[in-house]
Amino acid sequence: MKILIIHGPNLNLLGIREADIYGTKTLDEINSMLRQLAKELNAELDIKQSNHEGEIVDMIQNSRNYAALVINPAAYTHTSVAIRDAIAAVEIPAVEVHLSNIHKREEFRQKSLIAPVAYGQISGFGYESYLLGLRAAVSIPKKRG
Amino acid sequence: MKILIIHGPNLNLLGIREADIYGTKTLDEINSMLRQLAKELNAELDIKQSNHEGEIVDMIQNSRNYAALVINPAAYTHTSVAIRDAIAAVEIPAVEVHLSNIHKREEFRQKSLIAPVAYGQISGFGYESYLLGLRAAVSIPKKRG
Amino acid sequence: MKILIIHGPNLNLLGIREADIYGTKTLDEINSMLRQLAKELNAELDIKQSNHEGEIVDMIQNSRNYAALVINPAAYTHTSVAIRDAIAAVEIPAVEVHLSNIHKREEFRQKSLIAPVAYGQISGFGYESYLLGLRAAVSIPKKRG
Amino acid sequence: MKILIIHGPNLNLLGIREADIYGTKTLDEINSMLRQLAKELNAELDIKQSNHEGEIVDMIQNSRNYAALVINPAAYTHTSVAIRDAIAAVEIPAVEVHLSNIHKREEFRQKSLIAPVAYGQISGFGYESYLLGLRAAVSIPKKRG
Amino acid sequence: MKILIIHGPNLNLLGIREADIYGTKTLDEINSMLRQLAKELNAELDIKQSNHEGEIVDMIQNSRNYAALVINPAAYTHTSVAIRDAIAAVEIPAVEVHLSNIHKREEFRQKSLIAPVAYGQISGFGYESYLLGLRAAVSIPKKRG
Amino acid sequence: MKILIIHGPNLNLLGIREADIYGTKTLDEINSMLRQLAKELNAELDIKQSNHEGEIVDMIQNSRNYAALVINPAAYTHTSVAIRDAIAAVEIPAVEVHLSNIHKREEFRQKSLIAPVAYGQISGFGYESYLLGLRAAVSIPKKRG
Amino acid sequence: MKILIIHGPNLNLLGIREADIYGTKTLDEINSMLRQLAKELNAELDIKQSNHEGEIVDMIQNSRNYAALVINPAAYTHTSVAIRDAIAAVEIPAVEVHLSNIHKREEFRQKSLIAPVAYGQISGFGYESYLLGLRAAVSIPKKRG
Amino acid sequence: MKILIIHGPNLNLLGIREADIYGTKTLDEINSMLRQLAKELNAELDIKQSNHEGEIVDMIQNSRNYAALVINPAAYTHTSVAIRDAIAAVEIPAVEVHLSNIHKREEFRQKSLIAPVAYGQISGFGYESYLLGLRAAVSIPKKRG
Amino acid sequence: MKILIIHGPNLNLLGIREADIYGTKTLDEINSMLRQLAKELNAELDIKQSNHEGEIVDMIQNSRNYAALVINPAAYTHTSVAIRDAIAAVEIPAVEVHLSNIHKREEFRQKSLIAPVAYGQISGFGYESYLLGLRAAVSIPKKRG
Amino acid sequence: MKILIIHGPNLNLLGIREADIYGTKTLDEINSMLRQLAKELNAELDIKQSNHEGEIVDMIQNSRNYAALVINPAAYTHTSVAIRDAIAAVEIPAVEVHLSNIHKREEFRQKSLIAPVAYGQISGFGYESYLLGLRAAVSIPKKRG
Amino acid sequence: MKILIIHGPNLNLLGIREADIYGTKTLDEINSMLRQLAKELNAELDIKQSNHEGEIVDMIQNSRNYAALVINPAAYTHTSVAIRDAIAAVEIPAVEVHLSNIHKREEFRQKSLIAPVAYGQISGFGYESYLLGLRAAVSIPKKRG
Amino acid sequence: MKILIIHGPNLNLLGIREADIYGTKTLDEINSMLRQLAKELNAELDIKQSNHEGEIVDMIQNSRNYAALVINPAAYTHTSVAIRDAIAAVEIPAVEVHLSNIHKREEFRQKSLIAPVAYGQISGFGYESYLLGLRAAVSIPKKRG
Repeated sequence: MKILIIHGPNLNLLGIREADIYGTKTLDEINSMLRQLAKELNAELDIKQSNHEGEIVDMIQNSRNYAALVINPAAYTHTSVAIRDAIAAVEIPAVEVHLSNIHKREEFRQKSLIAPVAYGQISGFGYESYLLGLRAAVSIPKKRG
Repeated sequence: MKILIIHGPNLNLLGIREADIYGTKTLDEINSMLRQLAKELNAELDIKQSNHEGEIVDMIQNSRNYAALVINPAAYTHTSVAIRDAIAAVEIPAVEVHLSNIHKREEFRQKSLIAPVAYGQISGFGYESYLLGLRAAVSIPKKRG
Repeated sequence: MKILIIHGPNLNLLGIREADIYGTKTLDEINSMLRQLAKELNAELDIKQSNHEGEIVDMIQNSRNYAALVINPAAYTHTSVAIRDAIAAVEIPAVEVHLSNIHKREEFRQKSLIAPVAYGQISGFGYESYLLGLRAAVSIPKKRG
Repeated sequence: MKILIIHGPNLNLLGIREADIYGTKTLDEINSMLRQLAKELNAELDIKQSNHEGEIVDMIQNSRNYAALVINPAAYTHTSVAIRDAIAAVEIPAVEVHLSNIHKREEFRQKSLIAPVAYGQISGFGYESYLLGLRAAVSIPKKRG
Repeated sequence: MKILIIHGPNLNLLGIREADIYGTKTLDEINSMLRQLAKELNAELDIKQSNHEGEIVDMIQNSRNYAALVINPAAYTHTSVAIRDAIAAVEIPAVEVHLSNIHKREEFRQKSLIAPVAYGQISGFGYESYLLGLRAAVSIPKKRG
Repeated sequence: MKILIIHGPNLNLLGIREADIYGTKTLDEINSMLRQLAKELNAELDIKQSNHEGEIVDMIQNSRNYAALVINPAAYTHTSVAIRDAIAAVEIPAVEVHLSNIHKREEFRQKSLIAPVAYGQISGFGYESYLLGLRAAVSIPKKRG
Repeated sequence: MKILIIHGPNLNLLGIREADIYGTKTLDEINSMLRQLAKELNAELDIKQSNHEGEIVDMIQNSRNYAALVINPAAYTHTSVAIRDAIAAVEIPAVEVHLSNIHKREEFRQKSLIAPVAYGQISGFGYESYLLGLRAAVSIPKKRG
Repeated sequence: MKILIIHGPNLNLLGIREADIYGTKTLDEINSMLRQLAKELNAELDIKQSNHEGEIVDMIQNSRNYAALVINPAAYTHTSVAIRDAIAAVEIPAVEVHLSNIHKREEFRQKSLIAPVAYGQISGFGYESYLLGLRAAVSIPKKRG
Repeated sequence: MKILIIHGPNLNLLGIREADIYGTKTLDEINSMLRQLAKELNAELDIKQSNHEGEIVDMIQNSRNYAALVINPAAYTHTSVAIRDAIAAVEIPAVEVHLSNIHKREEFRQKSLIAPVAYGQISGFGYESYLLGLRAAVSIPKKRG
Repeated sequence: MKILIIHGPNLNLLGIREADIYGTKTLDEINSMLRQLAKELNAELDIKQSNHEGEIVDMIQNSRNYAALVINPAAYTHTSVAIRDAIAAVEIPAVEVHLSNIHKREEFRQKSLIAPVAYGQISGFGYESYLLGLRAAVSIPKKRG
Repeated sequence: MKILIIHGPNLNLLGIREADIYGTKTLDEINSMLRQLAKELNAELDIKQSNHEGEIVDMIQNSRNYAALVINPAAYTHTSVAIRDAIAAVEIPAVEVHLSNIHKREEFRQKSLIAPVAYGQISGFGYESYLLGLRAAVSIPKKRG
Repeated sequence: MKILIIHGPNLNLLGIREADIYGTKTLDEINSMLRQLAKELNAELDIKQSNHEGEIVDMIQNSRNYAALVINPAAYTHTSVAIRDAIAAVEIPAVEVHLSNIHKREEFRQKSLIAPVAYGQISGFGYESYLLGLRAAVSIPKKRG
């Protein structure tokens, strides 16, 4: 079972800045934890990051061989219909994750354009959101199978 | 580590009705899965259900000896400031879970009054939402400790 | 054919107070008229009243042996997603009735959270709303049968 | 006791099209049922239909000899201040009826410009809405007399 | 100088009903006062009334030989883009008049679709609104000439 | 019969600036026309102007010996509850006038805080608005007397 | 193949007034171009115009023998639920056309009540909108057939 | 003179948690201060607390022998039409009190559903709000008597 | 302990006009009651009134030697950011009082720009609001001291 | 005459996914049809597709040698001010096309940021929208020339 | 070149209170810096401050001999149409400055009524906003000249 | 001191098109003026332009060695949360500049997503906005240092 992890814009700065909101783990550390959990769950991971909306659209369009996506769309959560449409167009279930609890933050961050096309959403658990998201992604095809 | 699970209104009907939205597992089956996972995670569970807003407020007020709450506030997610205030008043982290993806449903279901005082929110994975919620609840004190 | 009548909060005060809005009939007088009409229509009635949202949810959950509900949700018309969800969860048609014409009153009373899951709504005819509601309730299974 | 029934725009197509929303009875069949019920209730009926807002205003202005109106304003429910003003101007109670449950439909259909000047509103019972509306109309003068 | 007076829907009932809002003068009495004032001002009047939006559109389209219009669009003030477009299409200045002060009444009556294409608006002086409107209409070409 | 004319803020610049919106007459010229018309109508005028909200409140409070007010509140039309309350507190009818058609201008100028406590409103006829307003003011006590 | 063209209110004035918005072609000239194009496309045309909402509803109800409608609802685009319901009730595809680009104009003109029941919408190409609309109408049955 | 004091949901936790918002006095300490002030004012107190909306409705319905209510509806301030309707139904003046200044807090806490049926509202003075509320309650019947 | 009382615009008319809303006491009578209560509470009062927003800003800026303010901003409650900023700038606690229950009145009166910077708000008790406000003002420094 | 066709994000997946909304034709098939029609109309086509907002801005900036653009901005229709500004900056008329009828879809898809700077809009005719759009684009310079 | 600097309400308290928002410089210190910069730029300054809206209107009306205004309207930024109209009426360019970044503060402070009639706006640089504003003011006539 | 200047989308067209809104200077000319001013201020400049949101995010992430940013986000001002988050993530103060006065333009241009994370905003002075912005940027570290 292959899972694609997509990190959205500015997540390459994780652990370096604004640690009070996003935690002290770097993206590399989170990716390591994800790879270790994937091994436990017998899943294979590909992990990508981009600050470019169009590149993320491309990544999603090219995800046909994956069993599921785990995506943290970050800032594009609230502004990208293109990413939403890409997820809706491919038939692979997408798990939306957020480090911070977006429902506690600015008004405009509480509305996700992605959520209505996502399989489910996990928000607020710091790096644990990614680990829970990976577990969720692995469980979906099992339930369906 | 003791965890309190609170099921909100109408969840006693799970698996019996509207299976297309909420899945085919009964509440007892979900509770069994939760108890089994708790054992794996070395956690102790108490599980309660109520259709009464005031009773849920009472349950939360009496949760001081628990390490965390996992709560599916169901209909009260969208209407209960009293449950929100009870969660804010006690100092125990609360994980909000939903079976269905509330962000895909009616406008009024997309806004949670509980989320701004919850530690995090998990929504849309069917009974798996509860299992992920329990894992999340167990992970919180570890991170803090 | 068994019909369940549910009177919501504050309706136990009917005929005693605010007669200019709700009329001079007491709840007992309305119940007598309902029982007499039920006899004419060969229907059997159970009649309940509660000021507690949770109790009304319980009543609806326990209504499986009835052919239909006639419910005046009163104040909970505008605030209770829990009652809405209970009606949606059981498979019995619900007729929503109101003594006053709610569409003439305060802005917040013009929106019913119950109406989208009710079979139909009757509003503004005083105690006659209940009698029309009972007739409507009796007619539904006939049309379906 | 004379009652005037007014059918608004497009109701002349009843039973022919969109039967899933409006039912399979034609307007003639509904009119027959209304006439039969009127006989039982010792009421005399006049029945009119128009697709023209101005004609419906004229009908209402000329309704002074009737004890009550039963009106299904159809599309004009949501757009006609002129019909509202005509009902407010004549002193005859008006019962507003709708075949479908307008509170379940598009946002713009959930708001009635007519309801605040109507005696009461009945919505969602198919052709039965008309029969209940006729009963309601007959009951009003009795309560007042 | 020829002036066209257009009375909108339900104004044929003036003086007969709802005298507390619209005053006790009948439309005929107001028309007499208008004709007498016209004589004083050396203007020639044509006066029309209709309950039909389309007929009022026709009247306005056919008003090319008039120096100005005085129009009380009544209910169509708030709902008719067609009348607005007709006024915008002909090149004759239109004076909008209202018997009652529409800015004191229901929210929906406070917005006029006609006002942005009218020369000016007079509202709230009872029958005097028409007389002031006629004076205003007569003064416009003078200022321009 | 004594009438008080109140000119609001910036009207002292009339005829000097923004003539395309407000016309080419100066405030003195308008006042002369008002005084001449007052003579014809056997009315006595006092005329005041102020750029200060508080001074206009004072003027209105001191208007008890007048039969009516004619007020162009200008910018304060849209922002002054204090002027509204002063008009409501004294018992003298107030005629609200505007040079430009406020319903054609910026959104915020289309809402008058004064109108709901004014006797009536005249808007859009340039200096003629004042003359019509004076006629209206003179006609009110006659109708009442 | 028979196509019905319906021109809404005030379009009889085309080419005569407001040429800057609607162009300099008269309705007759547009109709000639439509007839010529119809010939090329082997379609048969009927063309109607009305300023009356009710008449347009009647026209649509009587369009059953046509393969498609091309309708410019003009002012009724934004206010007529009755025309919307008529189009929804008949089973003939309707192509909505506008001379001006309604999305560039006043806020209230940017929302079409007709569009959600139309097959498609063409807006902004002047008389060319009609020609494109006729081509579109002719193409629909071909795609379906 | 008998006064009923009603403490709404979560107020039983006063002084124990969130002291920065609600102060350090426990509910028992506040009740003692209220009883002492009542003695000074020659009033008799009954004091109740509940987390259940329905129980608070019951308390209000049973308050007929009291001269006035002092109620802190807490979370139900913003969500309970049932409590509002109960207050409107009984004829006893109700003084609404809040420990914190609700007008400084979250948007949803700034709107009280109770205030429009309360005699008056006191907000923001900590436990002093209750003491002022009791004084206010005692003063009302005196002014009326 | 010195307290400053500020009466906002139009309050100089108290007891003379609109007694049904604001009561029959004159401002002088209220001031006498305030002075008498101040004596009981060992407080020294200065009392000012103005119809001018700028003067009220000046008064507040010059209040540094007072222990607290009691202010009824009247109409400026809803429109004055300048008064709000003045209160925020000086460090003296301000008690906002209203004679009428502003939460029962027009929509625009239900929002106070002052409340978010006030210590607390008392609304609806007629002249008693001032007396309660004075008690509140006197109690603040005690609690703090 | 050279025309530039721009296909926005996700349109490279046409015909492969979500055929119920967007039809079964692939982008290549549509491009072939466009090229064939261009030949008939004596126009020369360039066709581009991108998932990147910035690339589409670049394409438009570089379109100076074209007589017109035909653009389906897809998801960027609703979110891209940058594309809007690029179209406004170049002086080439842009025809906006949509495969689906965007006015029938989710609320956020009904508003186009592009439309106010487009020459016209064609929506809902499937691949035919492009063909009509090309015809429209070709007709514009003719009308102007 | 003469420039008029206008400081709005409460700015006389600068440097004394709320230094965390507005900085520690007093108004006198800012004025000194302005005068020094003016000397460098060969400009002549007049500097005024008022807490009164009407006085600021007067100042602007009397500014005809100045080349430009630099105005910090402070609280009146958000509430004064009178100051807006005064700026629009005189023909002198106005530079709007703010010490704090108003776009970061309360919702109501993010909207400026003045900005649409100002030449430009500078916000958030503390006392530097004034110095930049003076430079901007001096540069305007140069660009125009 | 090193300063980074970022020009957003479409600014490469400056001086070439829409000179009435954005002025006649080309981007090169503005950059020359900026470099000359930088020399005067002893600052070192890097200047970049991009039409791609993601590239601008990258530029900001790579700005750690600069003392400040001056950014004209152009169209992305109103739509890019990604740029906002990038600015918030790096610790370098950002000065937001706009050529046109965005507060005078379309509603959607009046709201900046960037402003709440910018140090300050300068809008409306044409190319002068950049020069003022550079001065502001240079002054920030001085004040802090």
